[in-house]
Amino acid sequence: MTVVNTPAVQNAADTEFVQSVVQHATTAFATNLARTPTEHADLLRALADALQEHESELVAIAHTETALPLPRLHNELGRTAFQLRFLADQVTDGEFLDGGTDDADPDWPVAPRPRLARRLVPLGPVAVFAASNFPFAFSVLGGDTASALATGCTVIVKAHPGHLELSRAVAALATEVIEQKGYPAGTFALIEGDEAGRALIVDDGVEAVSFTGSTAVGRLLADLIAARPRPVPFYGELGSVNPIFILPSAANNDTLAGLVTSFTLSVGQFCTKPGIVFLPASADLEVIGQKAAAVSAARMLTGSIRERFLAETSRLAALPGVTTIYAGNDDGDAVAPRAYEVSLRAVLDDPEPYLAELFGPAAVFVRYDHEDELLAAASLFRGELTAAIHTAEPDLPTWTLADRLARFAGRVLLNEWPTGVAVTTAMQHGGPYPASSSARDTAVGRFALDRFLRPVVLQNFPDRPSPGSRS
Amino acid sequence: MTVVNTPAVQNAADTEFVQSVVQHATTAFATNLARTPTEHADLLRALADALQEHESELVAIAHTETALPLPRLHNELGRTAFQLRFLADQVTDGEFLDGGTDDADPDWPVAPRPRLARRLVPLGPVAVFAASNFPFAFSVLGGDTASALATGCTVIVKAHPGHLELSRAVAALATEVIEQKGYPAGTFALIEGDEAGRALIVDDGVEAVSFTGSTAVGRLLADLIAARPRPVPFYGELGSVNPIFILPSAANNDTLAGLVTSFTLSVGQFCTKPGIVFLPASADLEVIGQKAAAVSAARMLTGSIRERFLAETSRLAALPGVTTIYAGNDDGDAVAPRAYEVSLRAVLDDPEPYLAELFGPAAVFVRYDHEDELLAAASLFRGELTAAIHTAEPDLPTWTLADRLARFAGRVLLNEWPTGVAVTTAMQHGGPYPASSSARDTAVGRFALDRFLRPVVLQNFPDRPSPGSRS
Repeated sequence: MTVVNTPAVQNAADTEFVQSVVQHATTAFATNLARTPTEHADLLRALADALQEHESELVAIAHTETALPLPRLHNELGRTAFQLRFLADQVTDGEFLDGGTDDADPDWPVAPRPRLARRLVPLGPVAVFAASNFPFAFSVLGGDTASALATGCTVIVKAHPGHLELSRAVAALATEVIEQKGYPAGTFALIEGDEAGRALIVDDGVEAVSFTGSTAVGRLLADLIAARPRPVPFYGELGSVNPIFILPSAANNDTLAGLVTSFTLSVGQFCTKPGIVFLPASADLEVIGQKAAAVSAARMLTGSIRERFLAETSRLAALPGVTTIYAGNDDGDAVAPRAYEVSLRAVLDDPEPYLAELFGPAAVFVRYDHEDELLAAASLFRGELTAAIHTAEPDLPTWTLADRLARFAGRVLLNEWPTGVAVTTAMQHGGPYPASSSARDTAVGRFALDRFLRPVVLQNFPDRPSPGSRS
Repeated sequence: MTVVNTPAVQNAADTEFVQSVVQHATTAFATNLARTPTEHADLLRALADALQEHESELVAIAHTETALPLPRLHNELGRTAFQLRFLADQVTDGEFLDGGTDDADPDWPVAPRPRLARRLVPLGPVAVFAASNFPFAFSVLGGDTASALATGCTVIVKAHPGHLELSRAVAALATEVIEQKGYPAGTFALIEGDEAGRALIVDDGVEAVSFTGSTAVGRLLADLIAARPRPVPFYGELGSVNPIFILPSAANNDTLAGLVTSFTLSVGQFCTKPGIVFLPASADLEVIGQKAAAVSAARMLTGSIRERFLAETSRLAALPGVTTIYAGNDDGDAVAPRAYEVSLRAVLDDPEPYLAELFGPAAVFVRYDHEDELLAAASLFRGELTAAIHTAEPDLPTWTLADRLARFAGRVLLNEWPTGVAVTTAMQHGGPYPASSSARDTAVGRFALDRFLRPVVLQNFPDRPSPGSRS
């Protein structure tokens, strides 16, 4: 493969250019309506193949741009290819588009019922804002693009500035595969730059927007979209603190060691990173420092992410009642893990300063005196991607706590860590605001497709004639 | 039954009062989480029974306030009771809350898969803005309230000022039934007044808002909700023109007579009323005037609705190229049907003036020269609740047109009229903006429940212990 810029990735920071990109996507969408889900599935599989054929070059570019470790990037590329194939499998027979049919019933209560055939149809051109922290899995050919293409939508990706070269390389590959498969060029495009991104989401031709990133940026986009003359759905995966509730029976070195691994994984740059941990005042925290000390300082995704991490951890360390359990030595651009301790009493008295998302390798350990304070601790949260319970004795009070956590989280875990999101049918990756902009939706799993579909009912129509029949 | 005001219906136009109502709804919601779907279903059935036990008094109040004919109101009350029972049947076994479970799989691609049990949980307190034109079916105990209660949400209804006495009477009944069934009083409340309504939708405790009414008012509410610190879903059923495409083979007196019945039904005050009709230039329109002349002038729902109707029809009649086919004599407050004619050419040249929703007994007949102009006519629309085709020969070109209509409508009909929405599993009542604020959702049918639920995945949990087991 020669990595070439496609026309769509040339300097795109102007509204007219974006309008023409959206126009192409709109025309291509109309053309693609004649294609079957089996064809869309075939396209997704070819995209997966292309990613894996070019794995070593793509991972090398990603490594240079993001500083993420090579094994992690190889794994992420594999996950991205699997995700394309998984979604292809979901749509390939077209059954997912069938919302069921009510037969005509002259005796139906109130009034005779006509035949009603419910079908799902794709929304149209979709704008996908790529993430910083998953250069493959939530980026150019990540889950949002895969979901949108699988349903028959066309896609315009706004590249993340943290990995532009990789975005261009993947976009070039995608463009090539789309052409090979006979899809029109407007099926997929990549644009760059914040101005182009703004022009994109307010373009009247864009029918849905997906985004993975911070709550602050997500909210800016949400506000722009809500102000459109014709508002459209916005699927933002935003910030999350992912609280962990450790019961006394599980407050041991193994649990704490697992926790350090989870919150330092990929330099703490996961949206599911546990940022706040409730554990008994009696628990011995020594292992946290020991484990954290074994984690090397590492470069973060971008300079601004690093600056925010340093500012946030400094602010936190200076809060009344906060003790630093561990603070490693940073090494130039590379940051080391941090861990902080505070009493539940202090947090309950004035929660906000302790509950902000901390993107990076740090966590706050909140000490409680009695297990029965955990329901009060749970009441601190409104919207989280995940919440986890660790206990050696899953009993009825565990279920009471789990039910409480389900009131604010999209995924509740027992004795596992939230980092690592399986690509599978039932998965939910999304939670109440501010974790997501649409708690009913998920960015991962089979139900990710639903975001780009809407129902249409055909009333009193016979079955559609087969393609070969004469009119 | 003695119709008494419940505390929640006393002069409610103040933020503190609304806050206390929402607080009660929030507390009741938490309490009701311990109740089963079977109990919710039982509550819905009791509400249906209560409505029907008091049918004659309620219909009498509704008739006085709305001027809708008695047979229509009896039918609507029956439909409302049926809707409560239909939704009760959907939830009664709790199966609809089960989103499926992925078993643990150590060999799952990329990484071992934990057990993931997907469940649907209710959102919380829901604000329901009642409609003017369905004093029962889209009002205090209408489809939105029924859907929300069925899922375990609590409900605060903002009464429509067009039928306040009826709203109070139904609310008093609901309050009584809710108490009888042992549900906390905060499960349901009624508030009145625009100020109270505004305070309600920006209250941080409200987790979703549903609304049936005009696009203009719906947009005001949507903007207020989008600006909340914590935005929530807004389900607005808004305006629709519901275009009808009559092919030459069906352009006969029977079709036109059916059309007049549909657009004058209930004084044209349905959101699915056909407002614009494409038909051949050669069609004889005489029957339209004949049928319309047989429709008596009738009072509209409110004075402001009548004034808007008169202003809109005057504006339309004065447009260049528009001919009045029929304009009946109004009789004091009572309005008579109107029908207008214009060429497709004029509409295609400058569409906007002809395409506004016309709420009331009027329709615009747009004359085309050739059948193949209908695809161009279809391209005039972006978001409609319904679109219909009338043809004596449903052939492949009919399917091409139907597919085109499916791009902007939520329901596409063949040889039937859009007025009359069956309460049934597959029904879709909702379409792209401006017909609805959420094209993926429906206000009628089984899927109406989905609006008030969100998924939660339990990861690595065993099956829930049965209620009787010891911890």
